[in-house]
Amino acid sequence: MSLYGVIPFAHHLLERVITHGDTVVDATAGNGHDTAILAEQVGASGCVVSFDIQPEAIQNTRDRLKSGQLAERVELIGDSHAYIGDIFRAKRYTPPKAAIFNLGYLPGSNKTVTTSSESTIAAITQLLDLMPSKGLIALVIYHGHEEGKKERDALLSFTSSLDQEFFLVARYEFSNRKNHPPFLLALEKL
Amino acid sequence: MSLYGVIPFAHHLLERVITHGDTVVDATAGNGHDTAILAEQVGASGCVVSFDIQPEAIQNTRDRLKSGQLAERVELIGDSHAYIGDIFRAKRYTPPKAAIFNLGYLPGSNKTVTTSSESTIAAITQLLDLMPSKGLIALVIYHGHEEGKKERDALLSFTSSLDQEFFLVARYEFSNRKNHPPFLLALEKL
Repeated sequence: MSLYGVIPFAHHLLERVITHGDTVVDATAGNGHDTAILAEQVGASGCVVSFDIQPEAIQNTRDRLKSGQLAERVELIGDSHAYIGDIFRAKRYTPPKAAIFNLGYLPGSNKTVTTSSESTIAAITQLLDLMPSKGLIALVIYHGHEEGKKERDALLSFTSSLDQEFFLVARYEFSNRKNHPPFLLALEKL
Repeated sequence: MSLYGVIPFAHHLLERVITHGDTVVDATAGNGHDTAILAEQVGASGCVVSFDIQPEAIQNTRDRLKSGQLAERVELIGDSHAYIGDIFRAKRYTPPKAAIFNLGYLPGSNKTVTTSSESTIAAITQLLDLMPSKGLIALVIYHGHEEGKKERDALLSFTSSLDQEFFLVARYEFSNRKNHPPFLLALEKL
């Protein structure tokens, strides 16, 4: 495939802004896939702060990091990303350069626990406040399920109203595919 | 800026598929900016076939290539890209690996001559037929002017109906900007 898939493009954008030693955020640790990729991108001197409200997700992520010898680069937070601002301040973490959200439900789980637009938007707002200029947030939006449709609409409304003087919002999607393929919103703090 | 602008992203996608020695197409030579970039990407052994119906555009492109010592890599065609299939066959050109369209009017001109959806769609259809698998077409769509709006709607309708078994259509755009910023449609032949 010559074009980027949605998730590879999200990782490519993050790779362009992240340098070794940075602190970054995985707002939805899930099974740890993105956390592991971010841990590679920040290098041995960097830090990934990974959030998930589900103990199962935190455990899966911990297991994946151990097998990749990346555990030392990651802070696992078993709490909602909606408290990201308070947590960063309380723990005195370096402001994050970048963040990724993989929105929807935990792959392989019972699908009853999903992300919600309220906590997602709360987290994004706090991240944009914490981040330095040129900081980037990648949102991968799955909208095949009912809660996903609501979250999609709320995020499109929220992001398209961000003031273009301070933020840039890019959207990347496949427009001839059926079955609601996921799409990417990428937010840059100018 | 951490995010790609629309035109830099088009060039980046083309760069990923183009290798030295390839034949590629600039369907709208304009002032030769894209033709010069493509000429760099195909190298000394490659070929850019550049179309424009306006003699002024062909001359501007010729001048730009001379100053960049790239003229030998380029075939300038003072005719409509709507005849691209016949021209490629008649001249026995190697099938194109990639193409770019910068749609709208010639920058700096009197804005009375614009591209039209009929000829653009005819050219895209012929290019998709000529191209090898993994071939890529980048369409940069300006839709601030009246004819541009019609062309945009026709192209969105045409591209979104392309069969996902054979083609992939990606859209990249800034979603929080005013004043109808240009956006990108990228078509891959699978």
